[in-house]
Amino acid sequence: MSISLEIFAPIVAVVGLFWSLLFWNEVKAADDGTPAMHKVAKAIHTGAHAFVRRQYKTITILTIVVGVGITLIYGLAGGHGGWTKGFEVGGSFLLGALFSGLSGVVSMIVATCANLKTAGASKNGLNAALQMALRGGTVSAIVITALSLIGISGLYLFYKFGLGRPEQSIPALIIGYGFGASFVALFAQLGGGIYTKAADVGADLVGKIEAGIPEDDPRNPAVVADLVGDNVGDCAGRGADLFESISAENIGAMVLGVALYPVFGIKGILFPLIFRALGLIASIIGVYSVKVKSSESPMQAMTKGFWVTAVITTVALYVCSALMLSNVPHASMMAAIMDFTMTNSALWFFFAGVSGVLTAVAFVYITDYYTGSNHRPVRAIADASRTGHATNIIAGTAIGMESTGMSVLAVCAALYASYWFGGQTGLDHGGIYGTAVATMGMLAVVGYVLAMDMFGPITDNAGGIVEMSRAPEEMRKVTDELDSCGNTTKALTKGYAVGSAALAAFLLFSAFLEETHMTVVDLAKVNVFIGAFLGAMVVFFFTSLAIRAVGRAAGVIVEEVRKQFREKKGIMEGTEDPDYAACVDIATRAALKEMILPGIVAVAAPILIGLVFRAEAAAGMLMVGTIVGVILAAYLNNAGGAWDNAKKYIETGAHGGKRSPAHQAAVTGDTVGDPFKDTAGPSLHVLIKLFSTLTLALAGLFI
Amino acid sequence: MSISLEIFAPIVAVVGLFWSLLFWNEVKAADDGTPAMHKVAKAIHTGAHAFVRRQYKTITILTIVVGVGITLIYGLAGGHGGWTKGFEVGGSFLLGALFSGLSGVVSMIVATCANLKTAGASKNGLNAALQMALRGGTVSAIVITALSLIGISGLYLFYKFGLGRPEQSIPALIIGYGFGASFVALFAQLGGGIYTKAADVGADLVGKIEAGIPEDDPRNPAVVADLVGDNVGDCAGRGADLFESISAENIGAMVLGVALYPVFGIKGILFPLIFRALGLIASIIGVYSVKVKSSESPMQAMTKGFWVTAVITTVALYVCSALMLSNVPHASMMAAIMDFTMTNSALWFFFAGVSGVLTAVAFVYITDYYTGSNHRPVRAIADASRTGHATNIIAGTAIGMESTGMSVLAVCAALYASYWFGGQTGLDHGGIYGTAVATMGMLAVVGYVLAMDMFGPITDNAGGIVEMSRAPEEMRKVTDELDSCGNTTKALTKGYAVGSAALAAFLLFSAFLEETHMTVVDLAKVNVFIGAFLGAMVVFFFTSLAIRAVGRAAGVIVEEVRKQFREKKGIMEGTEDPDYAACVDIATRAALKEMILPGIVAVAAPILIGLVFRAEAAAGMLMVGTIVGVILAAYLNNAGGAWDNAKKYIETGAHGGKRSPAHQAAVTGDTVGDPFKDTAGPSLHVLIKLFSTLTLALAGLFI
Repeated sequence: MSISLEIFAPIVAVVGLFWSLLFWNEVKAADDGTPAMHKVAKAIHTGAHAFVRRQYKTITILTIVVGVGITLIYGLAGGHGGWTKGFEVGGSFLLGALFSGLSGVVSMIVATCANLKTAGASKNGLNAALQMALRGGTVSAIVITALSLIGISGLYLFYKFGLGRPEQSIPALIIGYGFGASFVALFAQLGGGIYTKAADVGADLVGKIEAGIPEDDPRNPAVVADLVGDNVGDCAGRGADLFESISAENIGAMVLGVALYPVFGIKGILFPLIFRALGLIASIIGVYSVKVKSSESPMQAMTKGFWVTAVITTVALYVCSALMLSNVPHASMMAAIMDFTMTNSALWFFFAGVSGVLTAVAFVYITDYYTGSNHRPVRAIADASRTGHATNIIAGTAIGMESTGMSVLAVCAALYASYWFGGQTGLDHGGIYGTAVATMGMLAVVGYVLAMDMFGPITDNAGGIVEMSRAPEEMRKVTDELDSCGNTTKALTKGYAVGSAALAAFLLFSAFLEETHMTVVDLAKVNVFIGAFLGAMVVFFFTSLAIRAVGRAAGVIVEEVRKQFREKKGIMEGTEDPDYAACVDIATRAALKEMILPGIVAVAAPILIGLVFRAEAAAGMLMVGTIVGVILAAYLNNAGGAWDNAKKYIETGAHGGKRSPAHQAAVTGDTVGDPFKDTAGPSLHVLIKLFSTLTLALAGLFI
Repeated sequence: MSISLEIFAPIVAVVGLFWSLLFWNEVKAADDGTPAMHKVAKAIHTGAHAFVRRQYKTITILTIVVGVGITLIYGLAGGHGGWTKGFEVGGSFLLGALFSGLSGVVSMIVATCANLKTAGASKNGLNAALQMALRGGTVSAIVITALSLIGISGLYLFYKFGLGRPEQSIPALIIGYGFGASFVALFAQLGGGIYTKAADVGADLVGKIEAGIPEDDPRNPAVVADLVGDNVGDCAGRGADLFESISAENIGAMVLGVALYPVFGIKGILFPLIFRALGLIASIIGVYSVKVKSSESPMQAMTKGFWVTAVITTVALYVCSALMLSNVPHASMMAAIMDFTMTNSALWFFFAGVSGVLTAVAFVYITDYYTGSNHRPVRAIADASRTGHATNIIAGTAIGMESTGMSVLAVCAALYASYWFGGQTGLDHGGIYGTAVATMGMLAVVGYVLAMDMFGPITDNAGGIVEMSRAPEEMRKVTDELDSCGNTTKALTKGYAVGSAALAAFLLFSAFLEETHMTVVDLAKVNVFIGAFLGAMVVFFFTSLAIRAVGRAAGVIVEEVRKQFREKKGIMEGTEDPDYAACVDIATRAALKEMILPGIVAVAAPILIGLVFRAEAAAGMLMVGTIVGVILAAYLNNAGGAWDNAKKYIETGAHGGKRSPAHQAAVTGDTVGDPFKDTAGPSLHVLIKLFSTLTLALAGLFI
């Protein structure tokens, strides 16, 4: 049975990859739309590819330096098996980095094709366009999930059958994989996030505010850079982000599975991979279930698909727990599944997993409450906009901070419940494994969530293409509706990403403690307290650098656009084409330059704290840094989302509608929210997981 | 010797109180200025007294409820001596609350007199006006410091000589005092902070932005409420805030002194009181040394006074340590002072104390760097204002978050150094006591800092009185210069208050652990982690409530002002007086209503966490809540200060000067910064100390 268990996840992953090819062919075969659309899409495609190519050149160099550095440090630090350890950690680091990069690149390639296809499909109505965008998003979602499974399973099989290592020793050997994934994701998200918001803010500042032309107007030289930004920030960035989320969580859960090896054997270690594989299948089914009926909004259709995925996942969770996590012997698989006695540990772990699934659902609703335009928070910001820019900002700040309350309560409730359920099994480490199963439950629906997320930038781009190619009004109406739905799904994904990072955090700490053989992180020790204090500060400092980077890069773009308006008088009259490529090029250079400093701070700070104050302080830094990172990210994401939708709400005619003073104030809030929600917030998700995976991979140096 | 040691601090405090009467008579005897000034001052005086009277009525009720509640809970919870413990904690709680309230009320009374005298003195030139404002500030500073010493010493003498308790048991009996002080300070600061900024924002929104009249224009109906706000927020609020800072720190240090009782006897326990008394003397000398020469700015003169205080304090610290904290016997006091051997623990504790004094100095410079208009941060915000409101906000946010870096590094360095120095003594608990001495060092200059701080609202008010009474231009020039200096001293005090709260935090945790007989706060336990997570969240949530309260109360004022402009057409033409009292009354009611919810959250959250998750989780909440509170307060204070000064910098003519688009953007930033730096930030100082004193006082219930 063991060998079939071990190859289950990789087989599902490979089948999933083939399935994604089906979707991809469907997308590629679709109608390209008009030549005008084609021209715009081509410019976006060129810009995005150029950025990603240059970005990954930089990332590759950094990755190789760090990978070789890790190997050397472990090797030279010596100890028994220093070089072996060095190659294990360094090698898996490089593999994780490679796959993380691949995830980002594939997401970008798919998105820059699906945007045009969605624009083209918009002439066939809402459902056709939605299907197209969602199919495109699903391709990336499957590839990301499958790559994560293939990488980890591959390493597992390599160590077990290639090098003949004992199976319970393997999770510890592949922890570098998560660090590699986080490392690349950090720079991908930072670079992409800075690019996208610098272009967006830059385009808005000169276009909307100075020149008074609407969004996505082809006369704005920065408009293509803005559309490129959606692909490199939201797609490539978030693709790498969620790739590393699921990879880190998988590895952490496997490390904890080792602690339960005496009870469950290899099944406790492989459970995360197999359950994730089942979640992937559930997500694909969920995508197939999405169809917009004429009476529904696109968001309602998407939500239905989410519920389909969640229900199938829960069933899969039950079966999977019953077959793999039971502490009592059963005569048959059926008997295992039908065993509802309270002495059966499978049942308790199932409950723990359900609390994770419920947390995913809770985050969807919390995010919707705080950023949706039908609820008090967004309305309050819109109201505050009537008294000006300052009150809009004050209201949004208060709302964002308030939103951390529900988010943290949800995570704490899940953590407490799953720990308690796990504890009821009576097994050693049962509580911790319970939190691990909850995290798996939350992340099981990741495939569907990712598809929804990628849907966002694709529809955003489709809207831009339709607008810039001056397509008929009814096509714009379709893409506008999809775009608005995409904004919601993007916000939801960010809420989900923060929540899962928070839940995964405790599991990753526990893995770190297992690895370092620590049992206590004593905050009453002065060095641990200092580590914790510094960890919290680094989160704020990093955020500051990320936000400032956007401001600076936007400034460079503003100057270029002003220069073009000054030098090419024909642009505003529509007789001369602006030089889109120059803006793309400038945004690329500025973003790549600006991503270096925050990236280095993020990587260097935990290493320094670990080396100076040692492992327990590193654990303090990790835990408190994570707490602060989660809360700050929730604040930044929700404030940004709420500002965005308050503006949109006013644009529907409230408080005087477009061009009223309230609208101008709301535009200010939206612009402030841009780097909050699309640069700093998402980068913080990666940062906190980088803290975890880095300390896990380098634990050997801190002891 | 013991008895003389015990009465040293209260005697100095009583002498100090008499000295403050001298200053007070000097202030009262001064020239009242013109009848027009008198009329304005009278209105401010009436409004401030009415607010404080009503505010303290509410606070008194809340205090009695909590005080009686504590006694009952301890009594009914039983255990051996439940009722005794209940009366000890409840009684000292009420005394602390009473003295904290007194500090606030005295500060307000002094400020509402000194403002008029400073306005009157402004016709005699800069130095005369500065002396008057500083004298007024010093009265409050002395009273606050002296009351804290008298309260704690009084309780000590009462328990020792009145009830005959063993001296080393006494610190544990008076821990309710700190909680009472924090409890009143929280509501004083919240209510005052909401009032002052609601009035300020409300007055600006309608006055400056809608009606286009300058600041402090007598035609604005909210202008008196705005001036009242300075007294009730900055004076009464911060008075109570720093009263509880020094009280909490004194008691915490005395609790830790008990741990060193075997070595130093009663001297280790009394050291904090005696050194604080010496610091008070040093501060008075520092105030006397301040004189503005014609070649200097007022700020340079104030800084010189600070240095005089710091140097005298350092000398006092050395003498005090040599005489009280030496672990080797000496033949005479002179011999003790001349003993520079490294085996003398006094020397190491002196070094620890010096690191605290240096931290105070460091915070002055860090705050000046981040909020002064001669440095990069404020210039960067001013630059960003050229591209609009949004970039101004983005830049200020980034600068505020960046400023947490240096602040936290300074605190961590002091903490690490003082712990290390303390550890070099080789004594049990030496390291912790080292951090306590560092905190004492930092807080020794509190008298001078408080005088500088109170100086701010007095000069601000004086400027308002001069402006509203249409006094001659040269008097306005004097008060403008003082006002600008006062803005800087207010910002410095806030930086200092955050820094000292951070440094005191570790000492207060340690006292909590002593009290609960815990030795470990294990963040790897799920309940401790949840406590920590919730603690961090409560800080954000509380901040959200405080900021929103300002927005809401400001909205009420805006409507009243609009109503008056609508109904009394003569106001704008200057033919009709606005109804100032109506605005004052409305602001009072709104502020008192809005302070309740955040106040209750602040008090209820730690109690709930302690009761549900128990003492170790309460410790986790306390520590991580403090870390997050310190960082968030530093962010809010520094961002607010920097926005304020960026606006002022532009008003000096940069980037187009007053009424340019850059100026409008800078006004937005300044308005956003108002509730950040004057409501939420200062309330957070109190909140984190409330966490400490509350858990310390209720520790018995959480075990």
